[in-house]
Amino acid sequence: MRFAEMTVGQLLEALASSEPTPGGGTAAAIAGAMGASLLVMVTGLAKSRNNTDEEKAALGKARAVLQPLTTDLTRLADADSQSFNAVMAAYRLPKATDEEKAARARAIQDTLRGATIVPLDTLRACADALAQAQAVAQHGNRAAASDAGVAIALLRAAAAGAHANVRANLESIKDEGFKSSTDAEAARLSAAAVADASTAMQALA
Amino acid sequence: MRFAEMTVGQLLEALASSEPTPGGGTAAAIAGAMGASLLVMVTGLAKSRNNTDEEKAALGKARAVLQPLTTDLTRLADADSQSFNAVMAAYRLPKATDEEKAARARAIQDTLRGATIVPLDTLRACADALAQAQAVAQHGNRAAASDAGVAIALLRAAAAGAHANVRANLESIKDEGFKSSTDAEAARLSAAAVADASTAMQALA
Repeated sequence: MRFAEMTVGQLLEALASSEPTPGGGTAAAIAGAMGASLLVMVTGLAKSRNNTDEEKAALGKARAVLQPLTTDLTRLADADSQSFNAVMAAYRLPKATDEEKAARARAIQDTLRGATIVPLDTLRACADALAQAQAVAQHGNRAAASDAGVAIALLRAAAAGAHANVRANLESIKDEGFKSSTDAEAARLSAAAVADASTAMQALA
Repeated sequence: MRFAEMTVGQLLEALASSEPTPGGGTAAAIAGAMGASLLVMVTGLAKSRNNTDEEKAALGKARAVLQPLTTDLTRLADADSQSFNAVMAAYRLPKATDEEKAARARAIQDTLRGATIVPLDTLRACADALAQAQAVAQHGNRAAASDAGVAIALLRAAAAGAHANVRANLESIKDEGFKSSTDAEAARLSAAAVADASTAMQALA
């Protein structure tokens, strides 16, 4: 079942259960989707901060970026659990002969790469949403300032959580080229997310 | 409809819509419930960090505190939207006569107090969950370290979001005694949440 079709109660039970999925990667993607959705809400309010046409145009531009990100993050919540299930299936492959051992090792490395790219994409989507947060914080209705504040905090936590998952999966990857380029990309996205969250929080104050 | 019975997709749509509820307070409570649920998951894994009886006892104690907090936070997600709806209903009361004006002013102040206590309770539940996070981070299975990391980040963001909502509602409250005691309590809980999150993150490293 896709997470978007699960009830919130079922999602929480699934997160609390000792089954390996869903785990932190899925929770981070859903928290990011909640943050992006709250920013979409602020862009859609009838009144902007000073009710000028310029503000409404800026909010409309932010909204056009944010709306597809909520869909992306919901999809990434599913992809995270699926990619982790694929890694575990690879670990369960037979390893009786040398050929089986080699095939299993390849499958583990391939699926681990997939399970690393998903939280990297989650991190990127959160960073992309936070890149719009300053415009929302600056031009959005003041009555929704605490909603924008919650959105920024959730997106920042989701980005940090996604980054932790990238790092955790990279630990078991042997391809040094993939490892260093992914690590560098994650660090760059994470730094941008933190900087944009901080600028947006200042614009709210 | 209670949020626990809504699908994740419906929740995200409701957060993104320009309807006044659900807003940041509800999103913070659900993010906190996801964080607490992930910590419950780590306490329930077959293996603890070093698989000792002491560790398992410590994790069992944390679990007993965390499990009811996930339920509390889910309930607070509903209470947040309900209490905000009550404030808006009070603002819509008639104000033609002096008596109506006085009754409306009292209703606004009463419902605002209710709408302040809900995010204060959310903040307290997140702080209570984070007070258990160190034990979970220290004794939980290392394979779930990134799950614990996401949980801590989400609970910290939820606590910050709940605190922002307490402050936003206090702005319109006239009872100076309630205002200063609530503000002090929120600051105390927030400081404890930040300190416990930081200690727990160090225990994970």
